[in-house]
Amino acid sequence: MSTGADVVIGRLLAGGVDVCFANPGTSEMHFVAALDHTPALRAVLCLFEGVATGAADGYARIAGTPAATLLHLGPGLANGLANLHNARRAHSPVVNIVGDHATYHAEFDAPLQSDIDALAGWPDGVVVRPATASALAVSVDEAITAAVGPPGRVATVILPADYSWSTAEDVAVVPPAAPVTDGPAPADLEPIAELLRSHGASSVLLLGGAATDAAGLTAAARISSAVGARALVETFPARLSRGAGVPPVERLAYLAEQAEQQLAGISHLVLVGARSPVAFFAYPGKPSGLVPRGTHIHTVEPADLDRLVDALAAPGLPPAPGLPPAAVVPPTLPAGPLTVANWVEVIGALLPERAVIVDEANTSGLLLPAATAASPRHEVLTLTGGAIGQGLPVAVGAAVAAPDRPIIALQADGSALYTISALWTMAREQLDITVVILNNHAYAILQLELARVGSAATGPQSRSLLDLGNPDIDFVAIATGFGVPASRATTAEDLAEQFRTAVRQPGPHLIDAAIPAWG
Amino acid sequence: MSTGADVVIGRLLAGGVDVCFANPGTSEMHFVAALDHTPALRAVLCLFEGVATGAADGYARIAGTPAATLLHLGPGLANGLANLHNARRAHSPVVNIVGDHATYHAEFDAPLQSDIDALAGWPDGVVVRPATASALAVSVDEAITAAVGPPGRVATVILPADYSWSTAEDVAVVPPAAPVTDGPAPADLEPIAELLRSHGASSVLLLGGAATDAAGLTAAARISSAVGARALVETFPARLSRGAGVPPVERLAYLAEQAEQQLAGISHLVLVGARSPVAFFAYPGKPSGLVPRGTHIHTVEPADLDRLVDALAAPGLPPAPGLPPAAVVPPTLPAGPLTVANWVEVIGALLPERAVIVDEANTSGLLLPAATAASPRHEVLTLTGGAIGQGLPVAVGAAVAAPDRPIIALQADGSALYTISALWTMAREQLDITVVILNNHAYAILQLELARVGSAATGPQSRSLLDLGNPDIDFVAIATGFGVPASRATTAEDLAEQFRTAVRQPGPHLIDAAIPAWG
Repeated sequence: MSTGADVVIGRLLAGGVDVCFANPGTSEMHFVAALDHTPALRAVLCLFEGVATGAADGYARIAGTPAATLLHLGPGLANGLANLHNARRAHSPVVNIVGDHATYHAEFDAPLQSDIDALAGWPDGVVVRPATASALAVSVDEAITAAVGPPGRVATVILPADYSWSTAEDVAVVPPAAPVTDGPAPADLEPIAELLRSHGASSVLLLGGAATDAAGLTAAARISSAVGARALVETFPARLSRGAGVPPVERLAYLAEQAEQQLAGISHLVLVGARSPVAFFAYPGKPSGLVPRGTHIHTVEPADLDRLVDALAAPGLPPAPGLPPAAVVPPTLPAGPLTVANWVEVIGALLPERAVIVDEANTSGLLLPAATAASPRHEVLTLTGGAIGQGLPVAVGAAVAAPDRPIIALQADGSALYTISALWTMAREQLDITVVILNNHAYAILQLELARVGSAATGPQSRSLLDLGNPDIDFVAIATGFGVPASRATTAEDLAEQFRTAVRQPGPHLIDAAIPAWG
Repeated sequence: MSTGADVVIGRLLAGGVDVCFANPGTSEMHFVAALDHTPALRAVLCLFEGVATGAADGYARIAGTPAATLLHLGPGLANGLANLHNARRAHSPVVNIVGDHATYHAEFDAPLQSDIDALAGWPDGVVVRPATASALAVSVDEAITAAVGPPGRVATVILPADYSWSTAEDVAVVPPAAPVTDGPAPADLEPIAELLRSHGASSVLLLGGAATDAAGLTAAARISSAVGARALVETFPARLSRGAGVPPVERLAYLAEQAEQQLAGISHLVLVGARSPVAFFAYPGKPSGLVPRGTHIHTVEPADLDRLVDALAAPGLPPAPGLPPAAVVPPTLPAGPLTVANWVEVIGALLPERAVIVDEANTSGLLLPAATAASPRHEVLTLTGGAIGQGLPVAVGAAVAAPDRPIIALQADGSALYTISALWTMAREQLDITVVILNNHAYAILQLELARVGSAATGPQSRSLLDLGNPDIDFVAIATGFGVPASRATTAEDLAEQFRTAVRQPGPHLIDAAIPAWG
């Protein structure tokens, strides 16, 4: 007979979950000990729970299957919530194993006692609390099923310590046979096709979710080319294909003012895996919805894009009118002091084959898409939920999921500090990650946002709250402290040389790039 | 007419809240701008929300009044929850100001939208969501009143961005006149006095909350001396007086096995501001409650301790029998490589006058109390809720509350990394904090706990999850990166020299002390 901990591990593996990003405590010790019996479940130690949950998000975005996290009671889960929020917005499947006190211990209200269920249900999480140790097998199966979806979700199994150490049955759950049906009738795409034929020039296809892979982007570009509709990608895609061979479909801008310009004058908006666009924040006197009044909104499933191509008899690519101008060659290497304009050219010029870019560059990265459009084919993972501190953890998860691909983490300085200990996990696991810190010594986005909300930093307190200088933060020293080799770049030549070296050598590297803020 | 942001700041100041530990985002920009009109509210920038909430806890423990935090939407609050859990367990008053989207923006489910109320209510928090901008004044007053208590609580005002930027009335709330009563009749202490006279030798006074100040400890020691009862302090007091002139009352041990020995054989337990003791965690086959079966439990309010002294006609101190042996002189300075036994002697020998010790030393600090019993009078702030990552933030708050006192943060390595960016706030604010990192390159407490739950690290995965080596973490480099001068100590002589220097010089310092793990 196995212990509950053994059963949980066994069911995770049976469900295809073979990586666990872990930050355990006392109530998880039997689970930790059980890992020695089952080395097939790879445990990756993280020094903060937000690293573990962000890593699970990054893993899922690349692997397409969930990783587990191992978290310690309510406070441990609390520390992981912000990146679970991002994972939810990315529809990433994640299975949290949250240790709890022994069931009989709860009534004693020991110091770490809290309402774990309330946290696990936020935001929109699936919570599975087994009633007995022998219910653990079914609980884990349920959580995996819920997490995998579709859509991908965050699901949490609460694991009381006494269930972990008790004997428990490992009941393999036979999923109910799917009812034999013909499935839903295929959507009738002719109305959309007709609409696009007649109103293509005033239509926008907004792509999100599964439609942002190379196939989806190509299909959209073909439709765009055939009918003159514009294609746009949602502002913060979970996983976006880019680079050589992929149509460089423009993204809807983060700044509402720009997004409104992109959508100005349209009469029809076709949502393909994306939600109807809204402003990231509210601003005084500005609308929250970004779709022009009177626009007709339609929906097409990403899986139907190819049929829509056929219905429109859309010609192949290239060449094709109606697309944004494609960069034909990557940028050439720039020279001189680093600027917001030239650092992206260095990345665009030197991006290695099959890279994964984890983009939390924020304001410093506004010009990145143009610079990488003709780089080798790659994928971009973005900050889906706006909870900063996601980039370094997602890079950890992506690297664990794809050890043979170079991971490029482009990381704003302020955001990096929420989950900076991710660097240590990169060093311990020798993950092939090149971190470029865009170090402008400021919450530059807030300096921008302060003006956008119609206010201004007129005095020392507000200026001070948006400033990361005094003292300047030295990421070379911090990275060194966590065991990651690091260097500082102040010119484009520095960055190019250090980036080349970092990509060529195995294991993690960090470049602290001195980038001025905009303006 | 003021804006809502102005009103919130005005009501905070009117309620005696003049420090705000802030990690703002876009939805808080009007609040940030309003700080320039009202410099009396001191804003202290933190780079992570857990630093802000922990600092508010530390501030409250020293100042006795609440600080505010400024947090960004649900994910920002989520990042601060673990240290709010500790604050709740400390009964520290804290007033969170959590920015929200504009009220009309919520329905658009923008990326950062979430259920803030659910998080703010965890754990047992008071949530105030104003219905209009003009309700803000009352909302802030309500939150301050709830926070101040007694008991001290965590209270949260949710501040929608549109209320922040709208005009709002600053209605000074006149608190309802307290009903004129004679107050509750004073407790009849004679039964307890009689009990202690007849069963003193088999009784324990367990002191917590307000009873752990010098007056409470002295009163308890006098009672103890008069009737032969033992006095103990709860395991994790929020604020404990110690050192010269304060009776060195022993603390109830963290390890349940030791606590059971401390309570073995008692027939009466008198709780004075403390809760009935329970095991921190459950362990297979061990009881959760620590009080021996058949023990009679009684309660005395801390405010009644002096009357109990009178009722017992307890003689003054010293000398007095029945006390734990008092250390008469501080330890002498040890020599040789650092050990778990000698580093505490260095602290005990060199502790400056009026120090505040923030103790998150965990396993490395087990011998600290004995070594500091005869040091100059000081106070100790402990990890009340078990959510690690509390020490450095609490030190920030304590230093802001008491700029004229030396703050000594004794910090375990693993725990330090949850909120390490607190170092930057120490540097920016030039807080007089000496951080000693007890760097044993391990989650040593989990190595201990693994054995205590009846398990063992028998393989590479479990050993790896409890080990912080590979790579070793260099806190000198990390502190330097955050702008805090730092040095490494490997011998007792190093530690003594570096500690002296750190205490003598203004501003923060960090000492990375190489301490072996137990055993």
